[in-house]
Amino acid sequence: MTPHILQQDTICAPATTHGGALGIIRISGSHAIDAVTTISTSDFGKYAEQTIHYTHIIDADESVIDEVMVSIFRSPRSYTGEDSAEISCHGSRYVMRRILERLVANGCRMAHPGEFTQRAYLNGKMDLSQAEAVADLIASTNKATHDMALSQLRGHFSSELSLLREQLLQLTSLLELELDFSDHEDLEFADRSELLSLAERTDERIVQLSQSFKTGQALKQGIPVAIVGKTNVGKSTLLNRLLRDDRAIVSDIHGTTRDTIEDVIDIQGVTFRFIDTAGIRQTTDTIEQIGISRTYQAIEKARVVLWLIDEPPIASDIAEMRSHCKGKSLIIVRNKIDKSTIDFTSHLSSLVNQLSTLEPQLISISAKTGENMAALELAIYQAAGLPTLSECDVIVTNARHYESLERAHASLQRVIDGLHSQLSGDLLAEDLRLTLSHLGDITGGQITPQETLNNIFSQFCVGK
Amino acid sequence: MTPHILQQDTICAPATTHGGALGIIRISGSHAIDAVTTISTSDFGKYAEQTIHYTHIIDADESVIDEVMVSIFRSPRSYTGEDSAEISCHGSRYVMRRILERLVANGCRMAHPGEFTQRAYLNGKMDLSQAEAVADLIASTNKATHDMALSQLRGHFSSELSLLREQLLQLTSLLELELDFSDHEDLEFADRSELLSLAERTDERIVQLSQSFKTGQALKQGIPVAIVGKTNVGKSTLLNRLLRDDRAIVSDIHGTTRDTIEDVIDIQGVTFRFIDTAGIRQTTDTIEQIGISRTYQAIEKARVVLWLIDEPPIASDIAEMRSHCKGKSLIIVRNKIDKSTIDFTSHLSSLVNQLSTLEPQLISISAKTGENMAALELAIYQAAGLPTLSECDVIVTNARHYESLERAHASLQRVIDGLHSQLSGDLLAEDLRLTLSHLGDITGGQITPQETLNNIFSQFCVGK
Repeated sequence: MTPHILQQDTICAPATTHGGALGIIRISGSHAIDAVTTISTSDFGKYAEQTIHYTHIIDADESVIDEVMVSIFRSPRSYTGEDSAEISCHGSRYVMRRILERLVANGCRMAHPGEFTQRAYLNGKMDLSQAEAVADLIASTNKATHDMALSQLRGHFSSELSLLREQLLQLTSLLELELDFSDHEDLEFADRSELLSLAERTDERIVQLSQSFKTGQALKQGIPVAIVGKTNVGKSTLLNRLLRDDRAIVSDIHGTTRDTIEDVIDIQGVTFRFIDTAGIRQTTDTIEQIGISRTYQAIEKARVVLWLIDEPPIASDIAEMRSHCKGKSLIIVRNKIDKSTIDFTSHLSSLVNQLSTLEPQLISISAKTGENMAALELAIYQAAGLPTLSECDVIVTNARHYESLERAHASLQRVIDGLHSQLSGDLLAEDLRLTLSHLGDITGGQITPQETLNNIFSQFCVGK
Repeated sequence: MTPHILQQDTICAPATTHGGALGIIRISGSHAIDAVTTISTSDFGKYAEQTIHYTHIIDADESVIDEVMVSIFRSPRSYTGEDSAEISCHGSRYVMRRILERLVANGCRMAHPGEFTQRAYLNGKMDLSQAEAVADLIASTNKATHDMALSQLRGHFSSELSLLREQLLQLTSLLELELDFSDHEDLEFADRSELLSLAERTDERIVQLSQSFKTGQALKQGIPVAIVGKTNVGKSTLLNRLLRDDRAIVSDIHGTTRDTIEDVIDIQGVTFRFIDTAGIRQTTDTIEQIGISRTYQAIEKARVVLWLIDEPPIASDIAEMRSHCKGKSLIIVRNKIDKSTIDFTSHLSSLVNQLSTLEPQLISISAKTGENMAALELAIYQAAGLPTLSECDVIVTNARHYESLERAHASLQRVIDGLHSQLSGDLLAEDLRLTLSHLGDITGGQITPQETLNNIFSQFCVGK
């Protein structure tokens, strides 16, 4: 399917932030190659597509603005599907601004955020969910968010949706067949059980996808982890140890500076976010007991709770943990194994028994020396209870997709209820049509309202 | 001159900071094209140079890391002169890190800052002063710094130096000729006046270049401007008005965010830096008289002084300004023309007369309403007394070049002194050789010590 490329004005934008060695400026639209020719000392009209050329960008008075490389792409073999060019200049703020000014002075328009990808979508180069994945991929900071975004960009989610669409169209056909033969009562009965089974299978998959949103959100935002325990048990040391170990790994590769993100670590490509750590960082000079409300708020928000102890806990503490950690993954972390000679292994086992409904894990560490930290990190990862991700797994990460799936599920449920209550086919058709429409919203189509597109693409960065 | 391309290991580095739509990774060295082939789904060995191709970067387990475009360059037609490739990927921190990890796992090494440009220099693609201009060009933030860096990159300084070199070589030849014919006394005399004239012309140009360093530094760091005046005369309002007007112009172009630089404005492409403005910002609640030492310190550091008044100044103020503003450009700014009805035009003219040695300019404005601000900005620009810059003007901006020029001037002065005192040619030869060597240091050569190169290129960003 090669759709008609829409004729639109020519847009330009910086595709990199200044401050690097190189700056890239993107131009797309029917006038793109002419515009670059006009502001340079080369005639790009004569060059083959997918070639890259050295040239000078010149000012209106013919003085040189920069020595650059220009790549040429021709419709439809480009990112947007339109004629396009990319100028690779020196990464100076001034140079990038001047080149953009020259393009604007020669008939180009500054692109809106995401406008290149929006054109790629409008020109049929990708569907809407793939376009949204582009922004997610750019924002990805670890393996989990990267893999989810790339899977979606490569169309795995779209394939799932087109499978569901086929099943729903099959349902529609069967219903129409039933209507055509509605005078044969026996035939209707046979079709209904097949219809019901097909509708239920389809709905089951929609519900699965919808439920994956919770995991998708957790992976995108970081799995919340709370560190709780009495004063002086080593919470601050443990937090610093976890953060420092990770920083060391991350800064291994020269030149890939990491944005300063407080209190976040990556374990096996997944981000874990330590919550309410302000209290922990201040514990050196405040009296903090396990019973204060701040700790409970942290537990409330957490998916994984690390209960740090350095002596056998008393019965009331155990009772408190039991009441507050329901639905959470609890890890009991015995700290200071480098210092304390008290053997309370047997006590710990009985502790695990008392907390049996929470199925806690037990890890003994020294936050000070770093002993057994690898085991603790593994335990944290396992406690998160994440599904194993493979390249083709579909996890819904986008709130818009989630809402569409929920709506599709609701209307398909009405179809299923109607099938159960022997509603006639023409009454079910409307809800089937709605289900298809809700799923169709995810990948988009000719009928996607401009407002929805604006909402989606305004969240992109400029130049993509 | 196509020099032999040095065989070195293959280097890689990010050439853009993450956070943009695109990320560029550069690879250079004999193994560059093989390395990209190894980590992708394409065989780049078969593609022509200066072509750009869509491919997938794959992990060791063959899962896809990103969908990218790869540009291919072959020795000697590349930036470094070596086989090179550029990977244009999604501008995600994670994606860029993973691609670099894959390259390193396949025989590449992370590049040091400036190592690509260092190789370009070592392979004869540019001389040392041109290489240094690359870093200046990337750092340039306005027309003045850009034009100086680009002029140097395009070899205008190098041409000047090679002209000086020719003149010095001519001097050397004439001296040798003199030695050969040293038995003809009359011939020696004739040569000497020609020698002296040539040496003096050459030295004059060296001194001119050396003196341009002061302007170069001012343009690079911003021309220092002091705002002085009594309390409540409107210094803070004037500062904010100057800064705000400029901010509005700069943020005109969507997507070119400006780094937050305090108290700096661009006038006609030149940066002006307001100094000691902390005091001005606090004047609302402190009693500050023109006589306090802080004001004098500001004047001391300034090239341009704005003396803000709202009533006719008294004789002692005029005397103070006269004694402190020597060697500075003074602008007397009458503020609050929107409010004050007092006509002291004639008084101002007599004020100018009293300050006649300073040749002050006179501007009447309202900082509050913005009236006449354009005239004030023009006056500030003119007061800076900058030379008119054209594309080919050479202004020395680099301290290393300045020092070499000063050394060359000192040794050439010894030659001139020797010529005056009828020193024999063989005694002058050593200082002439030194002069040539000092000038040669600027553009570099086979003999540039590795330590000097390290100093120069360590100031570059990674990926350039």
